[in-house]
Amino acid sequence: MNQVATEAPPKATRPSLDDLNLSTGKKARLHRILYEFGCKNGTMLALPIDQGLEHGPIDFFPNPEAADPHFQFRLAVEGGYNAIACQVGLAERYYPEYAGKVPLILKLNGRTNIPPSDEAFSPCHGSVEDAVRLGADAVGYTFYVGSPRQTEDFIQVGRIRQECERYGMPLVVWGYPRGKWVETKGGRDSLYAVDYAARVAREIGADIVKLNVPKRSDKDTDMPKPYDEMDLDYEEGARKVFASAVNTPVLVSGGSKISDEDLLEKARAVMRAGATGLIFGRNMWQRPMDEALEMTAKVKEILREYPS
Amino acid sequence: MNQVATEAPPKATRPSLDDLNLSTGKKARLHRILYEFGCKNGTMLALPIDQGLEHGPIDFFPNPEAADPHFQFRLAVEGGYNAIACQVGLAERYYPEYAGKVPLILKLNGRTNIPPSDEAFSPCHGSVEDAVRLGADAVGYTFYVGSPRQTEDFIQVGRIRQECERYGMPLVVWGYPRGKWVETKGGRDSLYAVDYAARVAREIGADIVKLNVPKRSDKDTDMPKPYDEMDLDYEEGARKVFASAVNTPVLVSGGSKISDEDLLEKARAVMRAGATGLIFGRNMWQRPMDEALEMTAKVKEILREYPS
Amino acid sequence: MNQVATEAPPKATRPSLDDLNLSTGKKARLHRILYEFGCKNGTMLALPIDQGLEHGPIDFFPNPEAADPHFQFRLAVEGGYNAIACQVGLAERYYPEYAGKVPLILKLNGRTNIPPSDEAFSPCHGSVEDAVRLGADAVGYTFYVGSPRQTEDFIQVGRIRQECERYGMPLVVWGYPRGKWVETKGGRDSLYAVDYAARVAREIGADIVKLNVPKRSDKDTDMPKPYDEMDLDYEEGARKVFASAVNTPVLVSGGSKISDEDLLEKARAVMRAGATGLIFGRNMWQRPMDEALEMTAKVKEILREYPS
Amino acid sequence: MNQVATEAPPKATRPSLDDLNLSTGKKARLHRILYEFGCKNGTMLALPIDQGLEHGPIDFFPNPEAADPHFQFRLAVEGGYNAIACQVGLAERYYPEYAGKVPLILKLNGRTNIPPSDEAFSPCHGSVEDAVRLGADAVGYTFYVGSPRQTEDFIQVGRIRQECERYGMPLVVWGYPRGKWVETKGGRDSLYAVDYAARVAREIGADIVKLNVPKRSDKDTDMPKPYDEMDLDYEEGARKVFASAVNTPVLVSGGSKISDEDLLEKARAVMRAGATGLIFGRNMWQRPMDEALEMTAKVKEILREYPS
Amino acid sequence: MNQVATEAPPKATRPSLDDLNLSTGKKARLHRILYEFGCKNGTMLALPIDQGLEHGPIDFFPNPEAADPHFQFRLAVEGGYNAIACQVGLAERYYPEYAGKVPLILKLNGRTNIPPSDEAFSPCHGSVEDAVRLGADAVGYTFYVGSPRQTEDFIQVGRIRQECERYGMPLVVWGYPRGKWVETKGGRDSLYAVDYAARVAREIGADIVKLNVPKRSDKDTDMPKPYDEMDLDYEEGARKVFASAVNTPVLVSGGSKISDEDLLEKARAVMRAGATGLIFGRNMWQRPMDEALEMTAKVKEILREYPS
Repeated sequence: MNQVATEAPPKATRPSLDDLNLSTGKKARLHRILYEFGCKNGTMLALPIDQGLEHGPIDFFPNPEAADPHFQFRLAVEGGYNAIACQVGLAERYYPEYAGKVPLILKLNGRTNIPPSDEAFSPCHGSVEDAVRLGADAVGYTFYVGSPRQTEDFIQVGRIRQECERYGMPLVVWGYPRGKWVETKGGRDSLYAVDYAARVAREIGADIVKLNVPKRSDKDTDMPKPYDEMDLDYEEGARKVFASAVNTPVLVSGGSKISDEDLLEKARAVMRAGATGLIFGRNMWQRPMDEALEMTAKVKEILREYPS
Repeated sequence: MNQVATEAPPKATRPSLDDLNLSTGKKARLHRILYEFGCKNGTMLALPIDQGLEHGPIDFFPNPEAADPHFQFRLAVEGGYNAIACQVGLAERYYPEYAGKVPLILKLNGRTNIPPSDEAFSPCHGSVEDAVRLGADAVGYTFYVGSPRQTEDFIQVGRIRQECERYGMPLVVWGYPRGKWVETKGGRDSLYAVDYAARVAREIGADIVKLNVPKRSDKDTDMPKPYDEMDLDYEEGARKVFASAVNTPVLVSGGSKISDEDLLEKARAVMRAGATGLIFGRNMWQRPMDEALEMTAKVKEILREYPS
Repeated sequence: MNQVATEAPPKATRPSLDDLNLSTGKKARLHRILYEFGCKNGTMLALPIDQGLEHGPIDFFPNPEAADPHFQFRLAVEGGYNAIACQVGLAERYYPEYAGKVPLILKLNGRTNIPPSDEAFSPCHGSVEDAVRLGADAVGYTFYVGSPRQTEDFIQVGRIRQECERYGMPLVVWGYPRGKWVETKGGRDSLYAVDYAARVAREIGADIVKLNVPKRSDKDTDMPKPYDEMDLDYEEGARKVFASAVNTPVLVSGGSKISDEDLLEKARAVMRAGATGLIFGRNMWQRPMDEALEMTAKVKEILREYPS
Repeated sequence: MNQVATEAPPKATRPSLDDLNLSTGKKARLHRILYEFGCKNGTMLALPIDQGLEHGPIDFFPNPEAADPHFQFRLAVEGGYNAIACQVGLAERYYPEYAGKVPLILKLNGRTNIPPSDEAFSPCHGSVEDAVRLGADAVGYTFYVGSPRQTEDFIQVGRIRQECERYGMPLVVWGYPRGKWVETKGGRDSLYAVDYAARVAREIGADIVKLNVPKRSDKDTDMPKPYDEMDLDYEEGARKVFASAVNTPVLVSGGSKISDEDLLEKARAVMRAGATGLIFGRNMWQRPMDEALEMTAKVKEILREYPS
Repeated sequence: MNQVATEAPPKATRPSLDDLNLSTGKKARLHRILYEFGCKNGTMLALPIDQGLEHGPIDFFPNPEAADPHFQFRLAVEGGYNAIACQVGLAERYYPEYAGKVPLILKLNGRTNIPPSDEAFSPCHGSVEDAVRLGADAVGYTFYVGSPRQTEDFIQVGRIRQECERYGMPLVVWGYPRGKWVETKGGRDSLYAVDYAARVAREIGADIVKLNVPKRSDKDTDMPKPYDEMDLDYEEGARKVFASAVNTPVLVSGGSKISDEDLLEKARAVMRAGATGLIFGRNMWQRPMDEALEMTAKVKEILREYPS
């Protein structure tokens, strides 16, 4: 089996909207996101602003202006993003002024990072009905693959998926390996864990999945066989996990702030590897507006090379 | 990043009612609270009387007359408060005599302080429908940010927020950091914790948030970076956390009884820092009625200086 | 504060039915209990027969005849009690023969005492709809104040209270301090615990509250300040806790069997202290019918002195 | 009190159907069971076939033919039983062929005995609606008296009881003391535990209760006073616990297989003691059909002596 | 009893569709699966593709093409399977292209194998309504017999079974012994455990049950008596557990990949032992398409010998 595992990962395939067998409502809304905004070519650049809940105000310290959500909403509109993603409390207060100017992905669940994540579970405080009422074009849901509380997660996401089906609302899954058992098998950023998460997102019915690209680490030997012997570089790792999402459009997150060149290289690599798009938050709004717009433009240049 | 963190906190901004993008029902009710009662200038002085549940009869010992809720209801009406806040059991019994004379904030959840608060969760025994039936102008909800049981809290507050949306009922969140993990990171009154709580209130959809002002303490070094190196005085701390509530009107609580001069100075400082108002309980009703009315008048003098 | 605490407790006040701001249905039913049965003077003598569930058949050993619920139902009717209180299983089987002859308080929750009470919670197996269907004039609910499971209790009692509101059904709360944290603060019969329980009953919306009178004990020094220094005799203790129920009619329970003289003295003391009535079970039915009727008559003599 | 406890237990009373104050539907269905089947004299012989779930296929080893439920259904019809009791999976598959020929008691809850019973709880997987749809004449419910999970049991049985009330469906309670706290107080077969269980069945609204007869054991000294000093023989023990079921018809189970003579003597003793009938499973179907029918006939001879 | 236990196991009986007393909708759908697809002779060959969720992408390493669900759907259609079984996420995306060409068994619950299985529970994220909407001909449900969380499983499967009843949807139970208590009694593949699981499937209302054939192991002596002394070969073991499913059609799973000859021998043995069919996943799709089709044909040859 090792032979197979060390072969080149499968070729990149970027699913097109027509391949996804979506219901009419989902198709209409995803078409809006993918073809009427951003580069209008089937790629996606999303701006997440849920860090205030997930990490606290600390993420706004590098650019205090960004603590005011108007900053991100303005950036999303002026920068021509495909969508902005936030919790219902921000959407209720800020989206009215920007409604229609940029699509909204209403993030339905969340948590503070004050308790440790060894038994992570992200409870829903928003609803698909909220999303419909607010004119959102998708909902976002964090699924913690492999957590000791995954039982509750399956039940919760099943309910949300069915509501999405009822309303024709696309479901964007943040597919995150997490919890104490994941940490014993190579960790949350390991190829093993991200690869599993990618598949799970498809199995539970994600319309789009947000993934991190696996990182090589010292803990790689903790991964189950044959992952422990696989030695993939960044782009190969990306290609591998995107393939495991089987025909589900993938967004790659930027994570904490890195250098501009690294960020752009990351964008190029994952697009080459078959990503549908990028969801860059801190790397965009942890800088002044003019710089953020400039960086946005550079990233969109890359996306323009990958029409579908 | 430390450079940023030690800069002056952002300027105070007091959100006006028109900025809040409220539904019609919420706006009508908040207008009643903010402009038809109290100083009628957009500020707010609220009288809480939920201590009998949260702390027990012990809080009435300094002024036994105050054990009878008529005392607080009379004080609220005669002192011209913007609202009185209490649990449903008191509202059912006492509010009939005062209905219409002072707005009611029906506090929906609560707990006794007999069990320790390391896994704090405040369960709802009242409902938004109760509030509607009783003619309340807002509901109150305690959210324990960072508690090990925050999962239940997110789910519960999500349900309440949606009912508030359905009925046009404003949601006032008591945003309290609490639980064992908070205590390991500087404690419930630390800048870190209160700052996080302020943001969370906005993320979950609070229409108004009640905050404590952070205190400096020996445990400050336990706070995550860069909070552990931030050295803000009382007013700066207030300004910082109000800013983190991003565009959400803030009420500051009085806490346990302090000297009159300290209380008035506290009121002045937080109003300068951008608070919308004050929610003073024990500092008001733990004294005879005439003194309470006198103190109320002094506080309202301060509020008159901050119309919006 | 100690000065205040050692002063005489507040004066006894016995709330009248008109003061309670009850809904029409609640008022009609409580009027039936308080003015059409028993002494018909606003006082109340209730006969509880839930010990078979709470303690087991052991409580019937002193008077085996009392194991047959007909005994208690007959005693309630012939003795002219204001109400009989029992679980739904007894009500379904026995109340049909006595319906209309004595009001029924349907006890909705209960538990066996086989598991220890350190995490006490009393689950509902009866419903307010059961009470309506059976023609009951009130429902009974045990709330364990301060228990580690108080969270579930608040949620459960909130649901019951709202159903009571919907059907105009009075809610009688058995307000019992209980659980391991209570035991570390002076215990379930301490002034601290009972005083807190009395207030909580009002806060959660009890229409009538059943309380025990606090007992002095060796553990009094475990109570929080200033309770640990308060030295109240039986009647003063009663007066204190009744006052903490703020305007809620109080029933005092008899507890396990004591001497006749002690029982009558207890009845006199608590009525002087402002109780609305008594709920005496074992002290009544743990004796032959003729003696039980005789004792009932003596207790009612006392109640006749306290019309309201 | 010891004097009382060591006296003769109360006289046997076998409740008649008219004494039970049943709703019309319950009365019609119980009349069918008690007077239209079996000995047609108000006694009851039931055949339980829930051991496949509760104990596994192991119980069918002594008579492999009995692994096929047709065996028990045929035995119930040909032997003229008052009812057969089984889980919904067997009822769906086998009862169609026997419908109307023998009444069905649909057992609603159950569990495997693979996990230990120290925290026993028997979850419902069948419903009262299932029973109605299948033409059952009663439902069966196992209540584990005194279990650490009795909280869930009370809530579950309360829901089932109310559904029974709604549909006029008799509720047969398997009243079993169980769990770690029971074991510290003399054990599940102790007089203390069974006596308590009998009463609880009445309190929660059982229409019929299935009890085991207490056994003397070495652990009797662990029972609470005065049970620890009571020395009752088999029939006296039966009489005692039947009395504690106060006016609820009692079925006695056979338990694991014993000798024919012991079984018949057991039947005689419990009928003398006031049982309404017997629920004999393994003692009947752990033998060939002809022997099972023969034994059935002998037991029915005994039942014929106890018309009511 | 040992004598009985070591006798030959009961004769194989393969239930026919008419024997199962199915509702009209269930019968129509099972007829479609059993007589309109596959060998059209009442046998069944199903292709499961839920391993991506249960085991992760790791199962696709031996044949990377199989990571794309089109592989399995094509195999199911071209190979002429009776049904394909998968989670809702795959069904939503892939079944539209194959709808009507092969029946769908929608697997409703699932889990990742990242947490250990000592407290196994498989939560539902799909629903029977999903199955109806997607035109599925059955639903699949994993029941973990004997798990510490079996309580939740009974409640969940009871709800699913009732929904199946309402919609006429056949219920296929994956009957798996699992959890820490099972491991102490011989393990999940022991005769004891599988035999118990087979019976439980019938008791909870399975229309078809998927079983593993017991394996002999070193731990056999841990099994309860008399299982510990039973020495059955593969086919005898199969016959024994199929008999315990009493009149429920049995599918046998292939498990992890074995040699072709072993697989065919396995198929022959279990069909001789009375299985209705086979559910072979990895043994089919962990090879190239042409080989998979060839192997499929060989297995179907065997099934053709067992019409019913």
